[in-house]
Amino acid sequence: MSLRALSAKDAASLDKDLMDVNVGGWSLDQLMELAGLSVSQAVWKMQPLSQGKRVLVVCGPGNNGGDGLVAARHLKHYGYEPTIYYPKEGKNELYQRLKTQLQNLSVPFTDDLTAGLSQSDLLIDAIFGFSFGGPLRDPFGSIISQIENATIPVLSVDAPSSWDINSGPPSSGPGAKFMPQALISLTAPKPCVKYYQGRHFVGGRFLTTSIAEKYGLVCPDYQGVDQVVEVFKDGDGEFRYAPKEESKY
Amino acid sequence: MSLRALSAKDAASLDKDLMDVNVGGWSLDQLMELAGLSVSQAVWKMQPLSQGKRVLVVCGPGNNGGDGLVAARHLKHYGYEPTIYYPKEGKNELYQRLKTQLQNLSVPFTDDLTAGLSQSDLLIDAIFGFSFGGPLRDPFGSIISQIENATIPVLSVDAPSSWDINSGPPSSGPGAKFMPQALISLTAPKPCVKYYQGRHFVGGRFLTTSIAEKYGLVCPDYQGVDQVVEVFKDGDGEFRYAPKEESKY
Repeated sequence: MSLRALSAKDAASLDKDLMDVNVGGWSLDQLMELAGLSVSQAVWKMQPLSQGKRVLVVCGPGNNGGDGLVAARHLKHYGYEPTIYYPKEGKNELYQRLKTQLQNLSVPFTDDLTAGLSQSDLLIDAIFGFSFGGPLRDPFGSIISQIENATIPVLSVDAPSSWDINSGPPSSGPGAKFMPQALISLTAPKPCVKYYQGRHFVGGRFLTTSIAEKYGLVCPDYQGVDQVVEVFKDGDGEFRYAPKEESKY
Repeated sequence: MSLRALSAKDAASLDKDLMDVNVGGWSLDQLMELAGLSVSQAVWKMQPLSQGKRVLVVCGPGNNGGDGLVAARHLKHYGYEPTIYYPKEGKNELYQRLKTQLQNLSVPFTDDLTAGLSQSDLLIDAIFGFSFGGPLRDPFGSIISQIENATIPVLSVDAPSSWDINSGPPSSGPGAKFMPQALISLTAPKPCVKYYQGRHFVGGRFLTTSIAEKYGLVCPDYQGVDQVVEVFKDGDGEFRYAPKEESKY
């Protein structure tokens, strides 16, 4: 079944529905835990431990960065060696608690992106998500430039950072040639996936049928206890869910 | 490696450490999400969908019941058909939000335990956890009696409800002959596992080395991205982690 995309505006509205105590009943802590967990499982599918354990997690100041912090914690438990680059820390108490959780696991924080890139096997781009409206402000312009020129694989969380959520990559400047090797769309793909070429996962296994219907989405076809599902691009350029296969459990 | 047990008093202290913003940095929402997720994965290992999808989740008024509510949500996403029996609802806002999340997934709540038992393939006992100090108060005495006489398999969360966390099953009355088919210990086994015979899982993949050391625990040997690990009873009656095997992922 072809995936339908969730616009930036609808993604914000859906998030609000989820966290409305009288509608979805979710807390940000819960949603971020499941989002970050699905990011960590995408890493597991994309790059098994045997192919390199060192993961540089580049976190932005908002919820996308929070998803990255949660993912890093799970990755550490799986046996990866995450390092966090968090140039502009979110002030929200939740982000600080996520940071404490990582510090308790001896996950290092670095302020040197260049060194971090040279010492890692994979990069997670958890800088900006569906609420990114541009333009890129310092220091993120130069960070995106470094990441788009990186030689290690990149997994972007929700959208390639710097891309417009609806209209895709910028026509010039940082991000114009950014094409991460993998992308994990949270809840549902955003319209910019039209411009995306690479492995594509969907995560965030909390979507209900009623919310999916409200926003015209398709509930992803997760397998077994997986929190992530890979989707494939068809000949017509549309991402589709793979035919149901036996669970790996 | 032999598992070390966590006394009721130490379990309370460890929980407090985890949720201290200056120590563990966790919120109850986060911990409960991961605890409930591990319960759902224990169900997946214990009773695949092909062996019966109908799961009656019996929830107590506290955090153990909350773990059950979270587990039920994940089970619904996996394709099980959970029904909730929640005779004494927790007043905490979190429990109400968890209930909303289940209602949004059309998970039914029943007030008829007898009917629920006759229409289910598995029961999750999420009534009392490590903070249970006895005695059983109404209506839980008769509920435990019904559960201990049930003919369907039971998975107990953290401890068989009615058992004393440190000293095991009561010598008489409800629970005296309660021996669930499976048990999932959260964070670490409690001393009462000494009296337990059945499949035993450990879940709650958030324990850090420093917390484990503080309480004299062994970090469970989780595999791959699993949130649950099965442990086995040795000839000497001690539960041990199995030798490391290839992850199923």
